[in-house]
Amino acid sequence: MASPEPPYVAVAQRKQAELAASIPSQWKLPANLIPPGMLTPAESITEGSKLYGRVNVMNIPRTCGLLTSKELEITEQYDVRELVLAMTENKFKAKEVVEAFCKRAAISHQLTRCLTEPLFDRALSRAQQLDDHLQRTGSPIGPLHGLPVSVKDSFFVKGVDSSIGFSALAFKPASENAPLIDLLESLGAIVIAKTNVPQTLATLDSCNHLFGRTLNPLNRQWTAGGSTGGEGVLVAMRGTMVGFGTDIGGSVRIPAMCQGIYSFKPSDGRVPYGGQESGQIPGKGRMGIQAVAGPLARSVADLGAVMAEIVPRAELFDEGCIPGYWPAPSVPVALAQPRHFTIGILKTDGLVTPLPPIARVLDEVSQLLRRTPGVHVVDIPTPPAFSKCQAAAGRLMGIDDGSSVMDIIESMGESLMPWHQGGRFGRGKALTVVQLAALQAQRADIEREMLKMWTLGISRERKVDAIICPVAPHPVPELDRYNAVGYTSSFVLLDYPAGTVPVRKFAESDLDIGREMDEPVLGSWDKANRKLWDEKSTDRRVYLESPLSVQVVTPKQRDYELFQAMEIIDRAVQGTQAEARTTSKL
Amino acid sequence: MASPEPPYVAVAQRKQAELAASIPSQWKLPANLIPPGMLTPAESITEGSKLYGRVNVMNIPRTCGLLTSKELEITEQYDVRELVLAMTENKFKAKEVVEAFCKRAAISHQLTRCLTEPLFDRALSRAQQLDDHLQRTGSPIGPLHGLPVSVKDSFFVKGVDSSIGFSALAFKPASENAPLIDLLESLGAIVIAKTNVPQTLATLDSCNHLFGRTLNPLNRQWTAGGSTGGEGVLVAMRGTMVGFGTDIGGSVRIPAMCQGIYSFKPSDGRVPYGGQESGQIPGKGRMGIQAVAGPLARSVADLGAVMAEIVPRAELFDEGCIPGYWPAPSVPVALAQPRHFTIGILKTDGLVTPLPPIARVLDEVSQLLRRTPGVHVVDIPTPPAFSKCQAAAGRLMGIDDGSSVMDIIESMGESLMPWHQGGRFGRGKALTVVQLAALQAQRADIEREMLKMWTLGISRERKVDAIICPVAPHPVPELDRYNAVGYTSSFVLLDYPAGTVPVRKFAESDLDIGREMDEPVLGSWDKANRKLWDEKSTDRRVYLESPLSVQVVTPKQRDYELFQAMEIIDRAVQGTQAEARTTSKL
Repeated sequence: MASPEPPYVAVAQRKQAELAASIPSQWKLPANLIPPGMLTPAESITEGSKLYGRVNVMNIPRTCGLLTSKELEITEQYDVRELVLAMTENKFKAKEVVEAFCKRAAISHQLTRCLTEPLFDRALSRAQQLDDHLQRTGSPIGPLHGLPVSVKDSFFVKGVDSSIGFSALAFKPASENAPLIDLLESLGAIVIAKTNVPQTLATLDSCNHLFGRTLNPLNRQWTAGGSTGGEGVLVAMRGTMVGFGTDIGGSVRIPAMCQGIYSFKPSDGRVPYGGQESGQIPGKGRMGIQAVAGPLARSVADLGAVMAEIVPRAELFDEGCIPGYWPAPSVPVALAQPRHFTIGILKTDGLVTPLPPIARVLDEVSQLLRRTPGVHVVDIPTPPAFSKCQAAAGRLMGIDDGSSVMDIIESMGESLMPWHQGGRFGRGKALTVVQLAALQAQRADIEREMLKMWTLGISRERKVDAIICPVAPHPVPELDRYNAVGYTSSFVLLDYPAGTVPVRKFAESDLDIGREMDEPVLGSWDKANRKLWDEKSTDRRVYLESPLSVQVVTPKQRDYELFQAMEIIDRAVQGTQAEARTTSKL
Repeated sequence: MASPEPPYVAVAQRKQAELAASIPSQWKLPANLIPPGMLTPAESITEGSKLYGRVNVMNIPRTCGLLTSKELEITEQYDVRELVLAMTENKFKAKEVVEAFCKRAAISHQLTRCLTEPLFDRALSRAQQLDDHLQRTGSPIGPLHGLPVSVKDSFFVKGVDSSIGFSALAFKPASENAPLIDLLESLGAIVIAKTNVPQTLATLDSCNHLFGRTLNPLNRQWTAGGSTGGEGVLVAMRGTMVGFGTDIGGSVRIPAMCQGIYSFKPSDGRVPYGGQESGQIPGKGRMGIQAVAGPLARSVADLGAVMAEIVPRAELFDEGCIPGYWPAPSVPVALAQPRHFTIGILKTDGLVTPLPPIARVLDEVSQLLRRTPGVHVVDIPTPPAFSKCQAAAGRLMGIDDGSSVMDIIESMGESLMPWHQGGRFGRGKALTVVQLAALQAQRADIEREMLKMWTLGISRERKVDAIICPVAPHPVPELDRYNAVGYTSSFVLLDYPAGTVPVRKFAESDLDIGREMDEPVLGSWDKANRKLWDEKSTDRRVYLESPLSVQVVTPKQRDYELFQAMEIIDRAVQGTQAEARTTSKL
């Protein structure tokens, strides 16, 4: 006798049917354009990287014929400020812009399964209101007039689900908008979709029973990252101008690394975080470790364009936000600074030695910066306290017994995702408040020790403006193989702003075939990381062409300085690439 | 058979003897100058207001003959900036300035029992170093060169006790300075003493077994306030230029109210708070409610003079601090603002109706502000969420079982202070992390509702720059009669900067003899408050000449704006008083 179907199956089928139906038939890709390996949502969860061929779908939106040449121009030729300007100057109607991006988002979804809640009708009707307003008053509705944006599924949009991939939370629409949605809309931005996340939000593969697995458009064998994984894909595929996600362990920075795009994890209080579903008990972040919201985009300028409007206004939208300033336009730092802008190079967290291509890219960027006028580069010895951050962050994420999330999962008969299995997730024992206090006291000790990194330990004056370090100690891994998040979670523990800047693609010369690492193995995390390189466990050729990035970090609440540092580093990197392109043309 | 003496008695005697011995004999007041009612420390704890006559000792330092005319000039004729300037311009040596203040502090202590740790020798030797430095280099050591300051006993000073009045913590000198001490010393300030606090820091009378009760120099029948009570007294008596205390329920603002001086409770992260003894489990503030450090002084300008130097530097001294700016010199706000500066009047917290003199003073200030050019005044209806703040703050202070403090008390056989008795303090039951999370979630709800106070509920734009409200719903009460702290603790819960501005003295016309309040009693806190006015319970004449103040409050992290608001309000008040003085001379 077959066992009865668990309750989540029917809910997932209904949700998936609803999602499919929300894409107009004229925006559907013909079956022959969808590459093989687009499994059903249920299959996509359990089948690993092996099954997927090396397939890059990035060009399909451009070549499929569904987008007009004007829609291709709109979605490909403008950055945030230019696109808003084009709308306020009536070169484009907001409605055409929004329609172009909705269409491209729909196409992207059919290739990667990145969306959860398309908001196309809502977005188009809002765009019409903006067009009417501009025509009637001659003025845009705000500084982001008509800008198509998208958000992680967790943010509440009135009348729309925030199921975050749990069937138990499906068909329970939010009664009001999250403060971030209200703020974006007050600026004139238009939310065109919500995007996929991992089950529990606590893994790095955006994969769950309700929506299935989001695929990486660059190569379906690589993880799309998470937890803001659908968003990273949608931004990379130009299905949105800017995406908003959240980050407690790296969830804004890791998807950017997986797509070769840019992201910005602010300090707590810069971008409204309230009004989200997390599956966790409310108030947990305030006593443990606080996740933050931040943008993903295709350039540092685009990140700055939205942060410049959000940061100064956030304090009146969200009780968790604080006064913020964001000078505009950005002054080239190296020129404006009376002294050099000093960038520290932090090569390792002391727990997991970065794999050779990661170390190499960091070294390349540091060489570029050493040649950049106005920039001073220093090597930062790994502070002993930094090695304690990953464990402290991990413990602060698990202070309750986990029953809130496990109850949600089990109530519908859902199984855990592959990454969660083997004891990585489940019910535990809650801390007492005395244990929690001790943990917070340890965190304060770590923070105090880390202050010395910025003064080079010799004074109480800032000697280092920003540091660069890896986003992860490994390249973009295959599905369900993401390793330690210490390089990202540490900067949430410390509340340091941190962003991802893509550098270059993994090249043949990075393969080091036949050469294994000879550094001593530091511990279990390091050992696990080596498996992503060791030729017995991994065919390194899987990493070919994958994006390699660096992480940029500044001190607590120095968010504008992070933006400046990302600009400096990106220019240094882009300058070389432009040079390389010019040279190769000769 | 007599029961054996509890262990604290011998420790207290030794500590008191050590304290007495640290005052040079030539700085001792002759017995005939010490007014009656200076009981022994032990007697001072248990004997109430009745025993003390109405004695004002404020003039004794000036008249006792121990201070030279130059020392009187130094301690009475300068504000912070003027005094530092006088030292950097070599009008005074740092050593003479420090000696004058040490001497005046010693005199003040003999009249009020305000000190715990005189640091006279350390201060004089530091002053000599500063003088040598200035002579050698021609430059001051920092922007507060030579400024005599003092701190609450809780702050660690290397080699000195931080017993906070617990005999169990006496004779256990700190191994390093608190970050605030390091920061002050890096600026050139000189810490001349540490000052008395209440047992547990959780009452409003600065009274404990180790040092006895600090008396109010204006009138020994009134409480000196707490928990920064010794500091308030020392500032009022001009035994220091600026004092630093801490505030979780009102402990910086209440002593200022009790002395008729000024104080500033910043937002979290503005003034280094680390490196203190609290008797509590470390890390508690981070998961519950975070106390903050702030200054007490004799003018708004003096508060600004120290905040201007501390706030921009704090982030590199203390892991709990954040980047901060403090424009200098202060621009008159009403002139600099393109629009009016709007001050809201919040008459009540909705739980405890202010007694008539408190309501009257608030009304007087609001009338003065209405006549001030550039200022717009609005009445703020009490937000329903505001009435929930006191209880939420109280619960967040008591999240553990209290055993940390109770163990300290009981280990030496100490009894609880009078205010603590009757169940107000003791062992309890710790919350679970789930209960704590729920409490933090409730706090977030309160904060969100309170945002509307600043926008008048009609938009997401700030409509109110600052509010004024009572510091307490009653005048400076008699010993051990301080009532609800909701008017002060609420702004720690909300992390709103808040300061005390003295307005005028309680006058005969405030007595309303024969008239009782007819407002309905709102609850138990309100009922208790009425007892401080009701003629059956209180002889109102005890309040005659007591300082009446207002509290000024701005939104979270708007600390500089608080300073501006306090300047505006103080000028409005002082202007009238100057006018009144001029008129009365005619």
